[in-house]
Amino acid sequence: MEDCIFCKIIKGEIPCFKVYENDKVLAFEDVNPISEGHTLIIPKNHAENLWEISEADLHAIHMASKKVAHAIKETLKPDGVAVLQLNGRGVNQVVMHYHLHLIPHIPGSPELTMTAWELRPGDMEAIRQTAEKLASAIK
Amino acid sequence: MEDCIFCKIIKGEIPCFKVYENDKVLAFEDVNPISEGHTLIIPKNHAENLWEISEADLHAIHMASKKVAHAIKETLKPDGVAVLQLNGRGVNQVVMHYHLHLIPHIPGSPELTMTAWELRPGDMEAIRQTAEKLASAIK
Ligand SMILES: [Zn+2]
Ligand SMILES: [Zn+2]
Repeated sequence: MEDCIFCKIIKGEIPCFKVYENDKVLAFEDVNPISEGHTLIIPKNHAENLWEISEADLHAIHMASKKVAHAIKETLKPDGVAVLQLNGRGVNQVVMHYHLHLIPHIPGSPELTMTAWELRPGDMEAIRQTAEKLASAIK
Repeated sequence: MEDCIFCKIIKGEIPCFKVYENDKVLAFEDVNPISEGHTLIIPKNHAENLWEISEADLHAIHMASKKVAHAIKETLKPDGVAVLQLNGRGVNQVVMHYHLHLIPHIPGSPELTMTAWELRPGDMEAIRQTAEKLASAIK
């Protein structure tokens, strides 16, 4: 897509700090990192989100995520890695080209905001009904 | 694994609100939901995290995530869905059996904490060096 910043990175029109590349995906460092080693993996074919991306590209993204996660573990010795992927402006997707975040947590650094939430039991009857609705909508 | 709560759910020893199942994965509602439709997808083979899970199971998880994301979109009409997967106690992984969270955001409900962060430009030289280290550790 013409105005897409990630498509421009793929075409080499905007530079990036590349970590990994194959015919289907590109992995590079986020320049607004939440932590050291915060890496993005994107498909070379423009797709906005999980609903749009092809199964082949989705497969390639996640196989690459395993490679990058191993490199992060070996290199940065994190005590955890959060994998995050946002779909839609309602969850603050900023660049509308599918991207998978790999966010390492380095021991001793502050807790990542995306991993901090309180476990609160839900309304079991409401959850049962939602599960039924979702199950019946699966194609 | 004997003491693993998700393995017990897979074996039917603990009930769950099932959304989808095939030979490799199970999808069910989180009983401590962050939002309506908060769904977990797990591999039937016990694996702790992204480093351990097999490529075949990782593939199955993400193909299922597309199906569930479509069902969530159709049924709950969210304005976004966050996909989150935590690896390691340093990022608050609580159940040590790989699980992918699908967390819809329903229009008008509060912002999800895992999607709220400020973009702050990093130290470009440090990022360049990290990219080099990671790239050279890719296998
Ligand atoms: Zn694009
Ligand atoms: Zn298990």
